[in-house]
Amino acid sequence: MSQHSPIQYCRDCGTAVAYRLPDDGDTRERAVCPNCGRVHYENPLNVVGTVPVLPDGRVLLCLRAIEPRRGKWTLPAGFMELGETTSQGAARETDEEAGAQIALGPLFAVLNVQRVGQVHLFYRAHLLSERLDPGFETLEARFFTEDEVPWDELAFRTVKETLVRFFADRRTGSYGVHCVDID
Amino acid sequence: MSQHSPIQYCRDCGTAVAYRLPDDGDTRERAVCPNCGRVHYENPLNVVGTVPVLPDGRVLLCLRAIEPRRGKWTLPAGFMELGETTSQGAARETDEEAGAQIALGPLFAVLNVQRVGQVHLFYRAHLLSERLDPGFETLEARFFTEDEVPWDELAFRTVKETLVRFFADRRTGSYGVHCVDID
Ligand SMILES: [Zn+2]
Ligand SMILES: [Zn+2]
Repeated sequence: MSQHSPIQYCRDCGTAVAYRLPDDGDTRERAVCPNCGRVHYENPLNVVGTVPVLPDGRVLLCLRAIEPRRGKWTLPAGFMELGETTSQGAARETDEEAGAQIALGPLFAVLNVQRVGQVHLFYRAHLLSERLDPGFETLEARFFTEDEVPWDELAFRTVKETLVRFFADRRTGSYGVHCVDID
Repeated sequence: MSQHSPIQYCRDCGTAVAYRLPDDGDTRERAVCPNCGRVHYENPLNVVGTVPVLPDGRVLLCLRAIEPRRGKWTLPAGFMELGETTSQGAARETDEEAGAQIALGPLFAVLNVQRVGQVHLFYRAHLLSERLDPGFETLEARFFTEDEVPWDELAFRTVKETLVRFFADRRTGSYGVHCVDID
């Protein structure tokens, strides 16, 4: 899963790279190709997902069929792809992991997971139907009232922190955009 | 500047990759290494920055010393690095590009630039002093009232869209978190 092991070879020409300060004034050591000169950067990745909610208030969670955290419950989410916006990616992941029909709502949470180089962005979403069609990454997709949420069986801190804030905001009747740093 | 040219060689072993569907159920073609099996992903990058404001209301802009858009004005911003949060990155870029002393404020704008595979996140920031110390990426750093902003000489659409929303919110006295898709 980690995409951040050190770069060893140039993606453009296959030559072994050297870690050094580039010549452009950059103050960090980068993987620089001694053959073609390409400077290779490693940057954080975005994970995009949704908090999908039925008209009766139940929230959709997916039981993970893949590592990491196989057998734990998650909100539908996954790595943002080139060629899509954060909201398009969130909708795509909701379709891929749950086969859920949704109307995408506003941005709800931005969570930094600094330790693994990830930023997670969750959007609220209205489920348009109870019909689901989980993909291969999901063992089971199911709706939960707040009381039914399996808090001790959630796959990720990001999911827990997002759900806690969602239910808290819902009680107040007003939703914010939450920024959370996960240790 | 584009980090998204096609991957040609494996970063782990230097073997020429092949573009095909991976064996894990993924539905997109990826650069797969025929030697070590590594699947290489290409994902959008985050650009993080600030809207730095003096107590008298003037906003800090930087005249770019580097391409792209050398000689155009920008808010301090740059690529998020591994090992930092979005807000830490925004503060770091403000220091590197302007040498400005700030107190970072809340998230203000999330802008998708789908065409180039970037997500820009801007935070509001209070300038603690008028002292500046621009880095090598900046020809000049200067404070602008709303009327003085060089709207036709801004470096990026993301900067323009962020500034427009900042001044509009300031007039209402209430700041939101703005999500903008840039064509
Ligand atoms: Zn090379
Ligand atoms: Zn390889």
